[in-house]
Amino acid sequence: MARGDILTPVFMPVGTLGTVKALSPEDLLACGAQIILGNTYHLYLRPGCEVIAAFSGLHRFMHWDKPILTDSGGFQVFSLARLRKITEEGADFQSHIDGSRHLLTPEKAVEIQLCLGSDIIMCLDQCIAYPATHAEAETAMNLTTRWAKRCHTVWRGHEGAHALFGIVQGGMYPDLRKASADALVDIGFSGYAIGGLSVGEPEELMLEMAEITLERLPRSSPRYIMGVGTPENLVELVARGADMFDCVMPTRNARNGQLFTRSGALNITNARFKTDTGPIDDTCACYTCRHYSRAYLRHLYMSREILAYRLNTIHNIHYYIQLMADMRRAIGQNTFDAFRKSFHDQRTTISEEMP
Amino acid sequence: MARGDILTPVFMPVGTLGTVKALSPEDLLACGAQIILGNTYHLYLRPGCEVIAAFSGLHRFMHWDKPILTDSGGFQVFSLARLRKITEEGADFQSHIDGSRHLLTPEKAVEIQLCLGSDIIMCLDQCIAYPATHAEAETAMNLTTRWAKRCHTVWRGHEGAHALFGIVQGGMYPDLRKASADALVDIGFSGYAIGGLSVGEPEELMLEMAEITLERLPRSSPRYIMGVGTPENLVELVARGADMFDCVMPTRNARNGQLFTRSGALNITNARFKTDTGPIDDTCACYTCRHYSRAYLRHLYMSREILAYRLNTIHNIHYYIQLMADMRRAIGQNTFDAFRKSFHDQRTTISEEMP
Repeated sequence: MARGDILTPVFMPVGTLGTVKALSPEDLLACGAQIILGNTYHLYLRPGCEVIAAFSGLHRFMHWDKPILTDSGGFQVFSLARLRKITEEGADFQSHIDGSRHLLTPEKAVEIQLCLGSDIIMCLDQCIAYPATHAEAETAMNLTTRWAKRCHTVWRGHEGAHALFGIVQGGMYPDLRKASADALVDIGFSGYAIGGLSVGEPEELMLEMAEITLERLPRSSPRYIMGVGTPENLVELVARGADMFDCVMPTRNARNGQLFTRSGALNITNARFKTDTGPIDDTCACYTCRHYSRAYLRHLYMSREILAYRLNTIHNIHYYIQLMADMRRAIGQNTFDAFRKSFHDQRTTISEEMP
Repeated sequence: MARGDILTPVFMPVGTLGTVKALSPEDLLACGAQIILGNTYHLYLRPGCEVIAAFSGLHRFMHWDKPILTDSGGFQVFSLARLRKITEEGADFQSHIDGSRHLLTPEKAVEIQLCLGSDIIMCLDQCIAYPATHAEAETAMNLTTRWAKRCHTVWRGHEGAHALFGIVQGGMYPDLRKASADALVDIGFSGYAIGGLSVGEPEELMLEMAEITLERLPRSSPRYIMGVGTPENLVELVARGADMFDCVMPTRNARNGQLFTRSGALNITNARFKTDTGPIDDTCACYTCRHYSRAYLRHLYMSREILAYRLNTIHNIHYYIQLMADMRRAIGQNTFDAFRKSFHDQRTTISEEMP
């Protein structure tokens, strides 16, 4: 795309409010980030479109020149639970900040994302809780399809500068997932996302739904699994054909002191790191591992120093992005199966490393 | 000194717990920092000397290669109020973290600082409240002198790698300030600090005490005003001969959203910055001003995003360090008087800019 080609499979760090929490754009580039995610719902409420419009979009506002994908707000509105009401027209919701009421229609979701200057716009979708009945899942899936058509209509004329992705829904029902995928492919989008996963279902079910849906989507289009997941999830989903991912796990866990390593993860608060002069992971080349020890990171974290959040986040984001780069290399060299086995074999010590 | 010459007058950012809050060492270097300050009291309690000893000192622990000055803990112990007791032997205090009791003697204060690998070690001093009677100030000043001798004794043999500074006390009494300065000069230190200022006294009195004391200290030795102050204070104190400064103001105010400018300061939370696409100060060359707008900084701050604290701190530290560089240049060009006048003239708009 205009702001740079994206090598897939790719992990997109989550920048909810116009910043990937605790990192600067230069930190993200040093971690190898190719594209980041912004949250339409959050940015629409704060700072608001009129502020971002003064900068001709999110890129200049936040000093990030590479591509940005923005979600549609569907998932955030869903998360508001009783503060929202879904109708054919759109999602009527109350701001979590000041209680003001807003109607997010499919048209408005696209318009906001155009105003944000998003490189990849997501259709407004209706997310559902897990578990849900077949009827509930079907109703939401069909509404998502009708909304996708309306998003597509607004998007026409903007194809050059902005991609539009449809979002497959359908709960945990294979027939609905297939019907959703087929309907979206009929409309025709720049790429396809799979939503409504990692909402509380068992991991095996998540992988099964992803697999069924991925098979139904064109291999020639980018296929994006939304909001998933652990490093193990990413490897298994790439094995099933997924191209794009986003997840708050690396950033959020970093802020909770959980740091990813080859063998799993460690909790930096652990007393055994008190005088540990080694890095988080001695095979890691991130800024944090090149310059700081576990003992120092533990000290910063225990002291609630602001630098702790940045250094931990740099490491975890670098870990996720490096994992994707390793998978791209293995795919390119036709050694993905061996990579996948070796990845899982290394993680036998997770229980040992976990606090 | 071994870790690099220091151009004076110099401002030393405060790195209480082995980190200048919100900044990395690279951030500090980009701001032009030549030397930073560490807090003996805080580092002794957390992470403790045994942790820092595993790294052969604070420099490697925190990834900072340039000089470090450590205070002696005297001021922090004084701040504990009823949790401490001062005797001839030393300061008996209770940890603010776990309530454990510790005795900080002059010998121990130097030994801890040697363990931290400090480039400039400060003598243990007794600070007093403002106001204090002449008798109280005299007693504390004399004890500070006796402690300074004991510090000097422990320090002998370490002159090559570590400088030792004596601290002038004496409250707001000119005769005591002079006596304190004379007694310290008799012992003979690598440099001299003036403590016990900016403790609640009127600004004019602070400047008067500093002036009286600075006149009494050898011009050939570095003269350091501890814990002061505003940009105006720094200019006025350099005018009176001071060489070194430290203060939490730039870092703390940054975290409270107050940003320094040529004309004074602004509060980034102010609603009039909501869509302001300009930088904090359009003459500033710091990383924050080169890449971010007031509107973005306001948004980050209102959203309590971690990046806000780093960007604000970079600006304020850069401001302080640039101010010192400007003064050095003016001194070198024999134009300091003109600089001083111009500096104060620019600040006529402070009340306008302040929230």
